[in-house]
Amino acid sequence: MTFHFARRIEHAPASFLGELFRVSADPSIISFAGGLPSSALIDTEGIAEAAKEVFTTDPEVALQYSTTDGYRPLREYIAERYRKRLGIPATADEIQIVNGSQQCLDLFAKIFINPGDRVGMERPGYLGAIEAFSLYEPAFAAVPLDSEGPDPAAFEAMTKKTPVKFFYGIPNSQNPSGCTYSQDRRKAIAECLEGTDTVFYEDDAFGELFFDGKPRLPVKHYLPEQSVISGSFSKITAPGMRIGWMYAPKEILAAFNTAKQAADLHSNFLCQQILARYLATHDLDTHIKKIVAVYGRQCRLMCDLFDDLMPALSHTTPEGGMFLTAKLPAGMPAMDVFRKGIDKKVAVLPGMPFFVDGGGDDTIRLNFSSSDEEKIKEGMNRLASVVNRHS
Amino acid sequence: MTFHFARRIEHAPASFLGELFRVSADPSIISFAGGLPSSALIDTEGIAEAAKEVFTTDPEVALQYSTTDGYRPLREYIAERYRKRLGIPATADEIQIVNGSQQCLDLFAKIFINPGDRVGMERPGYLGAIEAFSLYEPAFAAVPLDSEGPDPAAFEAMTKKTPVKFFYGIPNSQNPSGCTYSQDRRKAIAECLEGTDTVFYEDDAFGELFFDGKPRLPVKHYLPEQSVISGSFSKITAPGMRIGWMYAPKEILAAFNTAKQAADLHSNFLCQQILARYLATHDLDTHIKKIVAVYGRQCRLMCDLFDDLMPALSHTTPEGGMFLTAKLPAGMPAMDVFRKGIDKKVAVLPGMPFFVDGGGDDTIRLNFSSSDEEKIKEGMNRLASVVNRHS
Repeated sequence: MTFHFARRIEHAPASFLGELFRVSADPSIISFAGGLPSSALIDTEGIAEAAKEVFTTDPEVALQYSTTDGYRPLREYIAERYRKRLGIPATADEIQIVNGSQQCLDLFAKIFINPGDRVGMERPGYLGAIEAFSLYEPAFAAVPLDSEGPDPAAFEAMTKKTPVKFFYGIPNSQNPSGCTYSQDRRKAIAECLEGTDTVFYEDDAFGELFFDGKPRLPVKHYLPEQSVISGSFSKITAPGMRIGWMYAPKEILAAFNTAKQAADLHSNFLCQQILARYLATHDLDTHIKKIVAVYGRQCRLMCDLFDDLMPALSHTTPEGGMFLTAKLPAGMPAMDVFRKGIDKKVAVLPGMPFFVDGGGDDTIRLNFSSSDEEKIKEGMNRLASVVNRHS
Repeated sequence: MTFHFARRIEHAPASFLGELFRVSADPSIISFAGGLPSSALIDTEGIAEAAKEVFTTDPEVALQYSTTDGYRPLREYIAERYRKRLGIPATADEIQIVNGSQQCLDLFAKIFINPGDRVGMERPGYLGAIEAFSLYEPAFAAVPLDSEGPDPAAFEAMTKKTPVKFFYGIPNSQNPSGCTYSQDRRKAIAECLEGTDTVFYEDDAFGELFFDGKPRLPVKHYLPEQSVISGSFSKITAPGMRIGWMYAPKEILAAFNTAKQAADLHSNFLCQQILARYLATHDLDTHIKKIVAVYGRQCRLMCDLFDDLMPALSHTTPEGGMFLTAKLPAGMPAMDVFRKGIDKKVAVLPGMPFFVDGGGDDTIRLNFSSSDEEKIKEGMNRLASVVNRHS
């Protein structure tokens, strides 16, 4: 028999990521290609304690079905953290718990995108978002990033043309570029969108991971009723529990909740309870300081090694997050660097899948969170042997 | 500003379930309206032990990101159970882990349904499936159920008309009716579909819960390459961990996996490890025997009380599962029974949301798993006071 799949899946962009990750699974390879937070910085003992407490308190409730919106104390914690950390007036009623912020991408696209609708993206844009949105068959409008954020003229031109349903961006330590929007650019974006029907979707996976420990005001501060923020515990607690959230105006959240219920009823309740207990009994700020200190050192080391060992390449210098992007010199395609890197036992991610309209084959993305300093030194030396022989 | 939601969400069927569940949340109400397994039958101690072992063995792995397909030992366990219990040659490569079988409904619809595509459903059909599928804007073709399964003439007529992408059914202890397909009907369905391009989607949430302890052969036994089975640990272990699976031919599973990755990367890995550890160290069959003994008694009690107290109503007599359906006499609308039931502190679920093409207002669904015998006696007496005064 022949399976007649839906158009959305037949047109899904052919992913070379599967093969790429299979190739880089070889344990002798030092991989800068993935996107894992550091396993060594997961507070396994603290989470184990919290789990033990949940199992000794009310396990019948934690293991039973629950409500779609999520565990109320966890939503209260998230809302309170927005109020205290960023001074924005979030309430638990504006928070929906999801399976990591990836699920926000799927459900938000589901409630907003009709086939052919225009969606604004950064160029380069986050691969996970491109994959999630693509299944709803939008037309992408890509706005190039400069060192302060989306190019203002291109952003304005996008909003003036056929309306964009929403613009999706990562203002804090963007993936893949590592760039952070300036405050002026955030204000300018908000001003440009005000009075239009375009929603600003801020993916804030990395806002807690600034090396200077200082929060940046979100676009939502300037555009409260017309923007949403997705967040995640994956980078500040543990990704394996798959807990993230959507913070959105109530009208959007009502539609989002309908989609969430149809998608999987609710997120795993046991882990929501473990996480809420962990956050109530452990100081998240202290833990984040540890993460940030390590990632900051690893990032600086990687940047320094680029400058010392591979002067032909330019690179971004992130203020936080987990990724940076390097630009390859002319005549050095990213796929060549990837393939020869694998031969030398180092993996980097070619830039192409981050570009919805072609290009990116002169860039590579590197992750600096999951490799310790020793591995970064060894891996960057391996990469230099590829790049310098090549150039 | 105005939010311009996608057509799929603007046309989502208005759900009175939210209000209904809010109303029935009053703790003085005995609710037969929900669909919870018995909290008293969750092996909280066994799961706590398994969790403790996971946290003392390799917690950094359990709390880190993982693969989209799911934890291999858990997939091996599921495949082996199909081989041993049903004699069908399942392999781990044909199993994808999801967030409870509700996510199968969403992802399967996502990979198969273009707007306007025909999808076959039982009449009455499972509400969760109707909600999940509706967001992909199919045209439903409803085939009435009789006591042996979908009406054969109507089923054949459906396949002969415009092709149906897939037929979704619950052959074992169907929700909401409580009916189980006969083996002859399963064979007839398989014969009818053979040679067509219609996939049979068997939702098997209740196949382990037959009161006689005997498994029934799935439609997939007769139609191996043209059918899928979704399964769930929610009813046999614990729903709060949100772990289910899709068992499907590899070509379908590849598309399904693409959709799963875009939806939420992977299901919560901590709970997958806890569950796998629990299943490796505890005998699931022994645990299921306990569940089945209790549900069997509760089901019989509810049926007997219908016969004794409400002779004007007819009801199905389930062989397993968690639900039965009662038919109301003429002139007694289900919404009246619901509203007057709430006044008398007993909740039942009106049948309408289970009918994609209207109707159902002469039926109510009752859950017999989540109320113990004492509550069933009291609740059925309250219901009788409503029904008998009404008739």
